[in-house]
This record gives sequence, structure tokens and C-alpha cells, in this order.
Amino acid sequence: MPPSFLLQNGITLAIALSVVGLVFAFILIKKVVGADAGNEKMAAIASAIQQGAKAYLNRQVMAVSLIAVVVFAAVWWLRGGLTAAGFVVGAVCSLAAGYIGMMIAVRANVRTAQAASVSSHSALKVAFNGGAVTGLLVVALGLLSVGVFFLIVRGSVDHAKHAIDSLVGLALGSSLISVFARLGGGIYTKAADVGADLVGKNEQNLNEDDPRNPATIADNVGDNVGDCAGMAADVFETYAVSLIGGVLVGHLTVGTEAAVVYPFVLCGLAIIASLIGIGWVNFIKQEATASLVCGVAVSGIVASGLFWWATQSIFPAGLKIGELAVSNVNLFYCAAVGLVMTLLVVWITNYYTSTHHKPVRLIAKASETGPATNIIAGISIGNQATLLPVLAIAAAIWGCYDLAGLYGIAIAVVSMLSLSGIVISLDAFGPITDNAGGIAVMAGLPESVRKITDELDAVGNTMKAVTKGYAIASAGLAAMVLFGSYVEDLQDFVGHKVAFDLMDHRVVIGMFIGGLLPFLFTSFCMSAVGNAAGAVVREVRRQITAKPGILTGSDIPDYAQCVDIVTKAALGQMIVPALLPLIFVIAVSFLGMEALGGVLIGTIVTGLFVGISMTSAGGAWDNAKKFIEEGNHGGKGSFAHQAAVTGDTVGDPYKDTAGPAVNPMIKVVNILAILIIPIAFKAVVK
Amino acid sequence: MPPSFLLQNGITLAIALSVVGLVFAFILIKKVVGADAGNEKMAAIASAIQQGAKAYLNRQVMAVSLIAVVVFAAVWWLRGGLTAAGFVVGAVCSLAAGYIGMMIAVRANVRTAQAASVSSHSALKVAFNGGAVTGLLVVALGLLSVGVFFLIVRGSVDHAKHAIDSLVGLALGSSLISVFARLGGGIYTKAADVGADLVGKNEQNLNEDDPRNPATIADNVGDNVGDCAGMAADVFETYAVSLIGGVLVGHLTVGTEAAVVYPFVLCGLAIIASLIGIGWVNFIKQEATASLVCGVAVSGIVASGLFWWATQSIFPAGLKIGELAVSNVNLFYCAAVGLVMTLLVVWITNYYTSTHHKPVRLIAKASETGPATNIIAGISIGNQATLLPVLAIAAAIWGCYDLAGLYGIAIAVVSMLSLSGIVISLDAFGPITDNAGGIAVMAGLPESVRKITDELDAVGNTMKAVTKGYAIASAGLAAMVLFGSYVEDLQDFVGHKVAFDLMDHRVVIGMFIGGLLPFLFTSFCMSAVGNAAGAVVREVRRQITAKPGILTGSDIPDYAQCVDIVTKAALGQMIVPALLPLIFVIAVSFLGMEALGGVLIGTIVTGLFVGISMTSAGGAWDNAKKFIEEGNHGGKGSFAHQAAVTGDTVGDPYKDTAGPAVNPMIKVVNILAILIIPIAFKAVVK
Repeated sequence: MPPSFLLQNGITLAIALSVVGLVFAFILIKKVVGADAGNEKMAAIASAIQQGAKAYLNRQVMAVSLIAVVVFAAVWWLRGGLTAAGFVVGAVCSLAAGYIGMMIAVRANVRTAQAASVSSHSALKVAFNGGAVTGLLVVALGLLSVGVFFLIVRGSVDHAKHAIDSLVGLALGSSLISVFARLGGGIYTKAADVGADLVGKNEQNLNEDDPRNPATIADNVGDNVGDCAGMAADVFETYAVSLIGGVLVGHLTVGTEAAVVYPFVLCGLAIIASLIGIGWVNFIKQEATASLVCGVAVSGIVASGLFWWATQSIFPAGLKIGELAVSNVNLFYCAAVGLVMTLLVVWITNYYTSTHHKPVRLIAKASETGPATNIIAGISIGNQATLLPVLAIAAAIWGCYDLAGLYGIAIAVVSMLSLSGIVISLDAFGPITDNAGGIAVMAGLPESVRKITDELDAVGNTMKAVTKGYAIASAGLAAMVLFGSYVEDLQDFVGHKVAFDLMDHRVVIGMFIGGLLPFLFTSFCMSAVGNAAGAVVREVRRQITAKPGILTGSDIPDYAQCVDIVTKAALGQMIVPALLPLIFVIAVSFLGMEALGGVLIGTIVTGLFVGISMTSAGGAWDNAKKFIEEGNHGGKGSFAHQAAVTGDTVGDPYKDTAGPAVNPMIKVVNILAILIIPIAFKAVVK
Repeated sequence: MPPSFLLQNGITLAIALSVVGLVFAFILIKKVVGADAGNEKMAAIASAIQQGAKAYLNRQVMAVSLIAVVVFAAVWWLRGGLTAAGFVVGAVCSLAAGYIGMMIAVRANVRTAQAASVSSHSALKVAFNGGAVTGLLVVALGLLSVGVFFLIVRGSVDHAKHAIDSLVGLALGSSLISVFARLGGGIYTKAADVGADLVGKNEQNLNEDDPRNPATIADNVGDNVGDCAGMAADVFETYAVSLIGGVLVGHLTVGTEAAVVYPFVLCGLAIIASLIGIGWVNFIKQEATASLVCGVAVSGIVASGLFWWATQSIFPAGLKIGELAVSNVNLFYCAAVGLVMTLLVVWITNYYTSTHHKPVRLIAKASETGPATNIIAGISIGNQATLLPVLAIAAAIWGCYDLAGLYGIAIAVVSMLSLSGIVISLDAFGPITDNAGGIAVMAGLPESVRKITDELDAVGNTMKAVTKGYAIASAGLAAMVLFGSYVEDLQDFVGHKVAFDLMDHRVVIGMFIGGLLPFLFTSFCMSAVGNAAGAVVREVRRQITAKPGILTGSDIPDYAQCVDIVTKAALGQMIVPALLPLIFVIAVSFLGMEALGGVLIGTIVTGLFVGISMTSAGGAWDNAKKFIEEGNHGGKGSFAHQAAVTGDTVGDPYKDTAGPAVNPMIKVVNILAILIIPIAFKAVVK
């Protein structure tokens, strides 16, 4: 193949590979749906979860649509029809990835429970393939939408810059959906979980997933709408924004066709690598954790080989960025940094949240002296967990910038996110096994089944923590790229260079206000979960008082009523925090473009720490409880266990609501800032 | 008096007024020590607390001296003898303010208990005057040392710049002592408190201050070494650094004698205002809170009048800053902003931490569903509490910069800190009444005495939260000033302009690493308290097991052993976090001056939020418990109360160890950065 083949057909190839990804997603869907769905009782429970999840997502779509229409109109007015069209494409694809993925997850759960009665590896395969559907959908839809949209708009207007500009609309659409999905889903899942536990475990001494608890179906629905649909929208957004950022920076700082094509090709090739990783997990029989970790490692190795080939083909003589000559080897190193970052984040998150390492065991030990010392230890570990990721991000930015400037950083981010397909498969695996365990208990399946789903659930717990670290760390790495896009676009618009010097008081004020955003945002998230959980507690208490037979098993609880209450509460509580970034960006734009620039960096700086510390602490608390339940420090029912349950409950909104929602919030702030440039800073144009 | 009088004699006048402050401090000391010290039993308890506090502080001085000698040698080598001399003056004065203040506090406590058997107002007066000693010492020693040192060094070298430079040594000396005092004292007080509570309240069902608890004396010692000595060193440092910052910026950006004299004069006049406020509390009989708040308000009103006069006298025709002409009215507005900020911080902190407002009541309500929801609510409130202070800081920076540039901000900071004398009096009042209550219980004084000390203690709780907010908010306001000093000094050294643009990846990397510091630092602080408290728990359990008669009252516990263990643990645990800023600054200096500049701003941005959210959440948790103890949500002993006790314990290291230590840590980073310029960036000089 001549060296110019990839250059000329790169985007088409990427689109073709995204279609391959979609085809495999549908093959996996057929495979999952075709598996044995168990007996009637299991089907009834699964159906209740499906109904609840679908009902919630439909109502969320309705609620978000109202806001989306307003934003759509504003985008059209500010940036024209093409950008507005991009907004719609981004929003619809983000929704679709989450929606379809979740509808498969709620079918995979019952089939995993059934497969667990055959063997552990069968259960692993069903759950993993259910998750892989979401993973493949996210990357395939992401690459397809950005690629096709890019080709169409590039053909329809004169200037390539406009085409790329309108991709920003696509980014906004996906980010907006993502922040709502993360928030709404996050509030839903944790309100149901905390609410069910507070009455069920603490007041009535019921076990997890006891069918006598009226909130138990809502709890299982929550796993799907939060950990599955919300997560998928979040990573879709991260993937799309990274790819668009790479294209944007390639166009603005390098300016050649090759630099624009390259990010598309990396994403396309990574789909092949992800498919091979998925194949590994399906066909090579190993212990669960080993199988999943090897799947990711195989994908990484394949990807690095393909990336080497692509870099050589697209840039046979290297590239020039301004005055700087960059060899293709150096550019490959940038892509490799992205892959290494993925592995590093997996390793670091695993260290801080797995039961095998010191941090979780310290928290478990601290539980011996009660809930207060458990919480103190958890917060301390969470803050400490920011150290290594931030140093890794700093080193990656330094290295990539030295190798290939801002474009080098953008490529590292694209490369890091290109493996989302396989990484998400691990994550979505978690809620499926969690649900499978719930169904096993509720349907009264034998103890052996529950044992297998419990083991898989513990693996899923750590894997779930990984994706959150991955998303927020990629945002940190992308900080320069996102800010760079704002500055380049701004300078383009106002027609002169704009400096953002730290000696400029407006920049520092902007950073303070931007730094405030993650703190205020997470404050709202935490209290939203508290409020919604309170509603669940009151409803469960009401049902138990009205029908005392529920507790003895002679009355059936009204599950649907709980589902309905959480749905309403989650949708009501998500609006204010979701609008915060919008309000902040518009308000600060009146203080000028320097202050707005400060806001972008300020939000990333504090957001990175808030996000990482919250997701890590939450994961560590959860597994400290699991570690005690394994028989350490007195085991289940001991004083230490009670303390650890408190820590886990505090960790719930940390790791599943507030922490992960910080990532899409950062993106919304950055993209909004770019979008309002033409209206906010008209007066500055010279 | 001719308008030039103040200009020519301003520094001398300021020094004279600082001597007046010292004289009044000694009058108050005589007054406090001369009060009735109660019966023999009370004297014995008070003496045990005194011995413990003195022993701890002596050992802390020894430990810090070792490090100080190394730093002293390094400063001498880097910056010469004068700066090293400044370092010694700063360190000694910072220590002295804390030491003397604490020695009075441990005498005022027993006298407050005795006065409480006379009347509430007598007790208030003794406690307040004991606190006022520390307040006056801090401002008088601060102003005296900076003023005298400035006059001496200015006479001894040719260039005024060198004189001001060596003041940086003084700032470093006070900051270094302050970070150790805040950390060591903070770890001590909370380890003793948490340790005593964990065994005493949770395991043995003993009340607070029960003499059968072997850790009870250590707990009372902790109030003095942490809340009194540690706080005094902290505010001394903040005061001295603000004054030096004002002088530095006056010299560098305005360059006239008037601009250098003005900050000294403001500080001197504020001592008069503080003395009048102290007189108000002593001579006007009011309800406790009203009396204290009026005292501050009176000081503020008097200060604003004096500041108006001083501004008119020193700048009869305004001043010129570069091209900018600033009227004296505008400069006065900057000073007024500082006074208003003080009142705002008092008001905001009071809103978030007093039992009369919504935030504390929300936490109390959340306690009904257990410790987890109490913690979630507290963290949410803590994060939310950053909103108003940060907006106020942003507005103040914006306004002062518009009025008079960087000098305007510096003046606002000086003015804000100039009222430290009266603000500290309120703060040091807290531990004295807390101790008085302890002594009343241990000495078996009648219930009515305990009732009075309890009421005063509740007032003291909110007042204590105020000073912490005040110190950290002033650091936020001073951010531009501190950073500006680094940049000016750096440019002076390298001989050309240095830009710190957010598009420079080194600046962003620096900000990430700087932003990491407060998270890592507080992580160490939290685990230090956990570790030291664990040592206390083991010792108390050991004593109770060895001598079961302790619980029945037939055996006397070995208080001294507990005091000794906390002392060793606190000193051992403070070293690593105290050295963190040193390590970070030196390590990042290898990445260049742009990265180091980023570190300074990054540390302030995240530090401001971490500091405010931790101190606010801690104060709110404490008072939520108090609110329940007043009989709400089930009152003392209820399920909600138990939950609130957990929240309070988590809040202990938040508000008294980690949160307040962030402020001196930020300062150490900033001052160290200035000091290492000549060695770190030698290669860059053109």
C-alpha cells in the first residue's frame, strides 16, 4: 500500500471501521439476547427493572429535550445552522449510546444470573459481552458521527475552519446530554441505594436486595440508569470532545490535511484493537480479573503496533509545527503516552481502591474505632489518591509538549480515549453483575449462584472505579487542549493576540470563580442525593407502616411507587447543578475574555482534584466494607463493619454522583466558553 | 499638625503605638493574673494543664529549632546575613506571641471558672481579657518587629530594596514557625480530643471532661497549644506577611516614601482602634455575643475614621502609580474594603457555623437518618460555604485593582489584618472558656458555674470559626500581592520581563502541582490526627485495664503519661506535612521559573477552597451537635445525637488541624519561592 493511501482515505477508513464496530456490537447484542433468560420468576424481576429503567430514561429525555431546544435555538442564533445541526447530532448519538447500551444491560443481567448457574466463566462472558455492547456503541457512534459530520460540513462550506468550528456544536450536544445523564442517573442510583439501605439495612435489618424492601427494584434500576447509561453518555462525550479537540488543534497549529486525518485514523485502528481485546476475553479462559486485565493489555499492545504503522504512513517525513520539525517517531511517542496513561490510571486506581492494597486496608483498620475514624481515613486516602495521577498528567503534558507542542498533547488525549471501547466494557460489566446478584437473591436461586455473582461483583467494583479515574484524568490531560481551543478561537475572532497572564488580576479572579464551580457543583450533587434519598426513606417507611405484611412476606411491596418517586426526585434535583456551568460562563463573560479564560483553567485545576479524590475515596470506602465482610476486623455484623457501612454510604454519592459528574461539567464550561465568544466579545473586535 | 508630620514620622509613630499595645497587654496580664484563682483543687488541675502545655511547647521549640537552624544557614547562604537576621526575628517573635499568650490563657482558664461563680459578665471579662493579651501581643510584636527591623536595615545598607528584601527573611521566619505551630498544635489538640472521646464517650460512656478519663488533661492542654498558641503564631505570620507585602508592593509599584510609610501607619492606628474595642467589652455591660460583636464593630468604626485621617495626611494630593493617578479618597476606599471584608467574613462564617441559621440546622436534621447522612450534609455545606467568601474576595480584588492597582489590593489586605488585635481576642476567648468548663467539672464546682461556662463556650465556638475564615480569606485576597512580589523580585533578578501565560504549558503544569499541595498536605494532616489519636486510645485502654479502679474513682489515672504520648505523637507526625511545601518548591524550581509561578497560584486557588470548606464544615458539624444537645431532633443521647457526635469527630481534624494549617502553608510556599530565586534561576540571568 503506498504511503499516501492512509492520508487520502484516512477518514473514510475510520468511518468504515466504526461501522465494523457497530456490526460487532449488533452481533454481541444478538449473542447476549439469545442466551438463556432463566425461569419465569427471574423474567418477571428483570422485566420490572427494564420497565423502571426505560421509564426513567424516557422521562429524562423529555426533561432534557426542553432545555436542549433552548440551547439549540441559542446555538443557531450564535453560530448558525451547521453548528446547531452538530449540536443535534452530538446530543442524539450521546443519548443513543447510553440508551441502547442500557437496554442491553437490563437484558444481560438476568442472563448473567442464569449463566452463573452453569459456570463462572459463562457468567463472566455474558456480563462482559453485555458491557462490550455499550463500549463498542460509544466508540463506533462517536467516531461515526464526528467523521460523517466532518465530511459533510467540510463539503458544504468554503472554509475548512467553519467545518471544524461546527464540530464544537457536536461537542456541546454530547457534553450537555452527558452532564444531565451523569447527574440524573447519578442522583437516581445513589438516592435509591442510600434510601433502600437506610431503611432496609439500618432500621429493618434486611439484607441487600431483599425482595421485602420496597426500594429494591429502584436500587437495581439505578445501577443501570446511573452506572450504565450515565457512564456511557459521559465517556461518549469525552471521546467525541477529545477527537474533535485533536482535529481542531491539528488544523489550527499544524494546518495540514495529515494532521487532521491522523486523529481519525488512530480512533479507527483502536476499534480493531478493542475488538481483539474483546475476543480475548471471550475465547481465552482465565480467572476473571486476569481475563479482563489481559483483554485491556492485549488491546493496548495491538493498538501501539497499529499506531506505529499509521504514524509512519501518514507522516513519512515527519511534520512541521510552525518552526518546529517533529519526526514521526516523536509523534508516535505522543500517541504511546496516551496508551501508557491508560495503563497507569488503571494501575493507580486499582492500587487505591482494591482490597489487596494498603489504602483500602488502612480504612478497614480505622473502622475498628468507629465510623468517624473510618471517614477520616477515607477522606485522607481520597486526597492522597490525587498525587500520582496529577504527577502523571503533569509529566505527560511536559513530555508531549516537548515532543510535538500542543498537537502532541492533543494526540496523547485522542490515543488515551481511543481505547474507550474496551475500558467501558469493564465498567458496564459492574452494574450487570450487580443486578445479576440482585435477581439471584430475589428469585431465590441457589447460594452457589449468588457466590459467583458476588465474586464477579467485587471485580466489577474496582473496574468501575477505573473508568471514572480514566475520564477525569483524560480531562486533566486535555486541559491545555481545551484551553488552547478557546484561545485560538478567541484570537481568531477578535483579530489580535490575547494574553492570559497570571499578573492580570482579571485572570486570577476568573480562576477563583472557576475554581469555585466544582466545589459548588459537588455541594449541590451531594445534597441532591440526600434530598432524593430522604424521599425514598419516607416512602419505604410509609409502605411498611401501611402494610406490615410486607416484612413478613405476606404482602407484596409496591415497587413501582418507589421507582416513580426516585424518578421524579432525580429529575427535579438535577436541574440546578446542571445549569450551574451555564450560569457561571454567561455571568463571567461580562467580566471579559481574560476572566473567562481564568474560569476555564480554574475549573480544570480544582475539578481534577475534586473529581479524583471523590471517586477514589468512594471506591476505597466501598471495598473497605467488602474487605471487612470477607471476615477481617471482625467480619460482617461487627462494630467495624457497621462503621464501614457508614463510610460506604458516604462514599456512594462521592463516587457515583458528584465525582464522576465533574468531568462532563468541566467540558460544558470549556465548550460553552468557545460558543459564546462571538456574542460576548463583539465589542473587543478591532 | 502639618500634613507632612505623619509622612515623616509614620514609622516611628507606628512603633510607638506598638509599644502602647505591649503596655496594655502587660496591664491586662496583671489584671488577669491578679484575679481570684479559686480553691486548691482548681489550682491543682490548672497547674497540671499549665505543666502539660509548657512541656509540649518547649519540646516543640526544640524540634523546630533543629529545622530552623538548617533553614537559617540556607537563608544566610542564599540571601546574606541581614535576611538571615530577619528570619531569626520573625521566628522568635512568632514563637513569643504564641508562648506568652498561651501562658496567660492557661492562667485565665481557672480564673474564668472562679469568676463564673460570681457572674456571667465577670467570667466573660476574665476570658476575654485573657484572649486580648494574645491579640495585643500578636499585633504589637508584629508591628514592632517589622518596624524596628525595617528602620535598622534601611540605615545599614545603601539600597532601600535590600532592606525590604531582608524583610522577606522575617516573613519566612514567622511562616515557618507558624506552619509548625499550627500543625503540631492542631495534631496535638485533635488527637487528644478524638482519642479521649473515642474511649471515654463511645466505649465507657463518660461525659466530656470526666476526671476518670486519663486523657482529659491532655484534651485541655490541647485547647491551649492548638487553639491558642498555634492560632497566635498563624495570625502573627499572616499579619507580618501582609504588612511586609504592603511595604514591598508600595516600594516596587509606587516607589515613594509615603507608599512605604502608609501600611505602617494603618497598623499603628488600628492598635488604638483595637484598644477602644477591648475597652468597650470591659466597660459596657451587654449579653455575651452582643458585647463581643459590638467590640469588633466599634473597633471597625474607629479604625475607619483614623484611616480616613491618615490617608488625607499622608497623601494630601493623592499618589501616582506609574501612569495612573490615584486620589486619596480612592486609596481610602481600598483600606475600607479591608475593613468591610473583615465584617463580611465574620458575618458569612457566623451564618454557616452558628446554630441559629439554616446550614447547621440542615446538618442536625440530616442526623436523624444516621451518621452517613450527617456527614454527606456536612461536606455539602462545607463546599457550599466557599461561595460567598470567594465571590467577596473576587469583588475586592477587582475593586481595589481598579482603584489603585496592586497597591490597592495590598492596602486592603493590610487594613483587613490590622484589626487582628480584636479579632484574636474573640478567638482565644474560646479555648479559655472551654478549659474553664473542664476545670469546673473536674473540680466539682456547682452546676450553675458549668452552665455559665457552657454558654460562653458555645459563643466561643462560633468566634473560633471566624478567625480561621479570616486568616484563609486574607490569604486569598493577598494572592495577587504574594504572586506579584515573586514576579517583581524575579524580574529584578533575571533582568527582563517574565510572562506567566496560561497558554504556557509550564505554567499549567505548575498550577496542577501547586494545586496538588493542599490536597496532599491535608491528607497527611488527617492521617496524622488519626495515627496520634490511635496512640491515645491504646494508652487509655491500657490504663483502664491495668487499673480498673480508675472507672470507679478509687484509682487516679496517670494523666501525665497521656500528655507525654500525645506530645511525642504530635511532634513526630508534624514533620512530614510541614516539610511538604519545602520539598515541592525546591523540586519544581528545577522545572523553571514559569512552573514555580504556576505552583504559587495553583496552591492558592485550591488551598483557598480546601481551607474554607474544611473550617466551615468542621464548625458546622460541631454546632449541629450542640443544636441537638439543646433538645432538638431527640436531644442528648438520641440516635440523631449519636450521628452528630460522629460528624463532630470527623469535623475535629477538619476545622482544627488540616483546614487552618492551609493558610501558613500557602505563605511558606510563596515566601520560599521568592527566597530561592537567586540560586534556582541563576542560569536564566541575561
